[in-house]
Amino acid sequence: MSGLRIALAQLNYKIADFENNTSKIADAIFEAKQKKADLIVFSELSVCGYSPEDLLDYPWFVEKCEQSLEAVAMACDGIAAIVGGVMRNPNSKGRLLQNVCCFIHDGKIKHIVPKTLLPTYDVFNERRYFEPAQETSIIEYKGVRIGIAICEDLWDIYNDFEYAEHPGENLKKQGAQIIINPSASPFHIGKQSLRNRVFAGQASRFDLPVLYVNQVGTHTELIFDGSSRAINANGEVAVQLPGFAESIAYLQYEKGKFSEGESVPLESNDAALLYQSLVFGIRDYFKKMGFKSATFGASGGIDSAVIQALATAALGAENVHPILMPSMYSSDHSVQDALELSRRLDNSPITLPIEDIYTAYMDTLKPVFMNRPFSLAEENLQARSRAVLLMAISNKLGHILLNTSNKSEMSVGYSTLYGDLCGALSPMGDVYKTQVYALARYINRHQEIIPNNIIEKAPSAELRPGQKDQDSLPPYEVLDELLKNYIELRKGRDEIITLGYEPSTVDKVLNLVNNSEYKRYQAPPILRVSEKAFGKGRIMPLVARY
Amino acid sequence: MSGLRIALAQLNYKIADFENNTSKIADAIFEAKQKKADLIVFSELSVCGYSPEDLLDYPWFVEKCEQSLEAVAMACDGIAAIVGGVMRNPNSKGRLLQNVCCFIHDGKIKHIVPKTLLPTYDVFNERRYFEPAQETSIIEYKGVRIGIAICEDLWDIYNDFEYAEHPGENLKKQGAQIIINPSASPFHIGKQSLRNRVFAGQASRFDLPVLYVNQVGTHTELIFDGSSRAINANGEVAVQLPGFAESIAYLQYEKGKFSEGESVPLESNDAALLYQSLVFGIRDYFKKMGFKSATFGASGGIDSAVIQALATAALGAENVHPILMPSMYSSDHSVQDALELSRRLDNSPITLPIEDIYTAYMDTLKPVFMNRPFSLAEENLQARSRAVLLMAISNKLGHILLNTSNKSEMSVGYSTLYGDLCGALSPMGDVYKTQVYALARYINRHQEIIPNNIIEKAPSAELRPGQKDQDSLPPYEVLDELLKNYIELRKGRDEIITLGYEPSTVDKVLNLVNNSEYKRYQAPPILRVSEKAFGKGRIMPLVARY
Repeated sequence: MSGLRIALAQLNYKIADFENNTSKIADAIFEAKQKKADLIVFSELSVCGYSPEDLLDYPWFVEKCEQSLEAVAMACDGIAAIVGGVMRNPNSKGRLLQNVCCFIHDGKIKHIVPKTLLPTYDVFNERRYFEPAQETSIIEYKGVRIGIAICEDLWDIYNDFEYAEHPGENLKKQGAQIIINPSASPFHIGKQSLRNRVFAGQASRFDLPVLYVNQVGTHTELIFDGSSRAINANGEVAVQLPGFAESIAYLQYEKGKFSEGESVPLESNDAALLYQSLVFGIRDYFKKMGFKSATFGASGGIDSAVIQALATAALGAENVHPILMPSMYSSDHSVQDALELSRRLDNSPITLPIEDIYTAYMDTLKPVFMNRPFSLAEENLQARSRAVLLMAISNKLGHILLNTSNKSEMSVGYSTLYGDLCGALSPMGDVYKTQVYALARYINRHQEIIPNNIIEKAPSAELRPGQKDQDSLPPYEVLDELLKNYIELRKGRDEIITLGYEPSTVDKVLNLVNNSEYKRYQAPPILRVSEKAFGKGRIMPLVARY
Repeated sequence: MSGLRIALAQLNYKIADFENNTSKIADAIFEAKQKKADLIVFSELSVCGYSPEDLLDYPWFVEKCEQSLEAVAMACDGIAAIVGGVMRNPNSKGRLLQNVCCFIHDGKIKHIVPKTLLPTYDVFNERRYFEPAQETSIIEYKGVRIGIAICEDLWDIYNDFEYAEHPGENLKKQGAQIIINPSASPFHIGKQSLRNRVFAGQASRFDLPVLYVNQVGTHTELIFDGSSRAINANGEVAVQLPGFAESIAYLQYEKGKFSEGESVPLESNDAALLYQSLVFGIRDYFKKMGFKSATFGASGGIDSAVIQALATAALGAENVHPILMPSMYSSDHSVQDALELSRRLDNSPITLPIEDIYTAYMDTLKPVFMNRPFSLAEENLQARSRAVLLMAISNKLGHILLNTSNKSEMSVGYSTLYGDLCGALSPMGDVYKTQVYALARYINRHQEIIPNNIIEKAPSAELRPGQKDQDSLPPYEVLDELLKNYIELRKGRDEIITLGYEPSTVDKVLNLVNNSEYKRYQAPPILRVSEKAFGKGRIMPLVARY
């Protein structure tokens, strides 16, 4: 029986950066050939990055994609490669493009395998661009019958709905001895156990070994974690690649199974995973955008404290610039806590009090405000004055503004549009407040980095005297579970009430969420770490009866 | 041969407002029955509004939809009705929902016709939610063989790509004598001639009369113009309903054709159409959101002048509140022009100079800015100070902030994020600067409403001494054509250069457009009046190599 030495290339691509993506792929092919591999497998859409979105509407982009695949083919001699990209649909009907993997050998594209199942839900939009494959086929290479199933092609029975087509089943029927699954599978908390279920499930369903090769890297909101793996038909993991890092691994396929290779165990603690993913997300976003340094408003509260620790881990202490902007409503302990955190993280904070600015606004607005009582307008004025200062610093010094909002706030609209909702990136917009606390405790696991006082005090926006979050919201443990039921699990009002929540609380919270759609519409991109993040994965009408 | 008296119900629905949508439909059925119609036709997804987007992920929403269709059926006795809605997919495989039209008669849903072609491009997202129909069928009613083709079902050969399925052809083969096309077809400049081509084309292709019934109303970005019509097989329009207004019309189908009925001619002048659509768009957005009054920054420039005229036409003079916020760089004529416009439109402007606020910011920022030279930071500070004032007024008085940006600015990023890019709605974010001038001339067609000085002076942001737009941009006639080639026609750099543009100009402009994706990501919803508006119809990666 025949054998194959296979390289798994888990690499970080940048969208539309054909030159660098292609040379990265060529380098990996060169290395794999040196290391005597017979075949090297890259992830989905590797030459162009996943997902190029409406760049696919530009003919030059598709031509570049096809040219890159040809260029890779020419560099591929004495070894075979499976490389992902976009090609024109050869049929005269249907969408103009296909999401394909090329099987390359002897300097040529020998087979083009289009994707059959095109995910079009949540953050996925593939039916917007691609025509699905009409059939599957087997590639015979060095005596091994290889079936290629691209990403979703192996998730046919693992969705809210069951697809009508079953490409994996077809490959099995056509005599596949191994299923290769080049993927672009974004991370979220819980995704690992989902993948365990899918890959072990499919391996056992088809009684075949499965090779899953994912990309790694942040593409705006989406964090791709890699975590590629080779699974044998019995569900055993032969090789496990790391999360959140580029890696090329080698394994031997022989007698119908993968022999065990070197594995990097995956992190399984949720707080640790959250920390890893967010630090990686921030770092890769900055790197790909060509940014170096970050700034943010350091309030002395838990959210900005965790952002500061994440940013420092991602970018280095010298590149993180906390700005303290106390008002007349800021407590002394907030300022002290914020300064203490900067001392511990070795950041150099700047303090810019906003009282004079606030006074100038109130004086200017006197002809309009007259003697109307203090209201939301004055609270928002403070938050917005701070945002203007932060953006001025960003414009003048080139530091990139990080948003400090969390998902609980974003959900109920307890953030000021054009105020604390500003930022180039929202690292924690998909992290509930209770998870923010878990992150803080994780950051403090070896020593107290975030002052305990920040973790222990009652959360407050400090926009009016004595204000506390819990004055107008249920406790975060209750609120976050309620929000998860509504947002992640898409339960309706009545169903949530049957879970034991007070009807008045449910009505209040759901109204807050619905009536804040207009704020989230203008929110920064949010690093996605849950199954249902705000942003492109949750498209809600603004104008509707809620 | 048999005949039918048919009512075309072109109505304005609100998304998720089942109660009001259903009673509006029931009222129309009642009226049509009084007027002896045999059949009344409503538009696509009429019970729930088009498009409910991710509300469709909520089971309660789908149940409400089905219940509403049942409720409409019960109200429908002695007349037949075609009503659009969402229903669960009866098959065990595929997406869980279908976009359907129900044929209702004798108090019952007699036939359920699912949509075959699910548009998934530009602003359309239907593959995200729906499973397509597998086959078409004919409904026989009072001796007439009716074929129902829902919206896109008649656009099978009128796209950038040709669909593989041809539902209209199938209906013809199955013996249809008339094709009814309940639609949700959004407006843009040029859409009318596109529809002329499609409907006359299909009528003649199948040698059948076609009845197109569209909804009317603004759903956040999308303006549905109605403009429903009945076309005979020879392409002649038998009945034409108005644009941008609810209307129920009646016509007689006899001996294979529609007899001519009352028609409202459609506006064909582009500037007039633009004006109509934007006024309607603003008005309906405010109405559906429960808003009454608007505010905006009145700079004395052309953009805010046109916004002021549009808002006044949409909301009434007493509900439009221009705020003048001059700085040290504002010219006297700007202030005078803005005041003069308010006199003519009968608005009551308020003047709030921003110098004190600007000074307070600069004083506060001294420890950061030191003696660094005047730069973009100081320009943006002015724009953002104004936005904070406008939002404070909005928060205090409840006026809704209208964004005054145009598409040329939005394209090249010549607007300040969290500054003049603020607003709840951007009425002109899809209107190029040259079109803004055309709108101004249209507004002045009978008398000089917008002072000629505003139209004639060189456009300037007035954020530094002597600044003019054209210092750093090509003339708007050149810029706008270039932008159209890139954005609407999706031509690439090289292709645009072959049209005769300077390569350096093309590179500069394309770089500006690409590097402003991050600003547009956080821009307000934009009323869509072109084939390719920014917003949900143009999804570009932020992190990419451009």
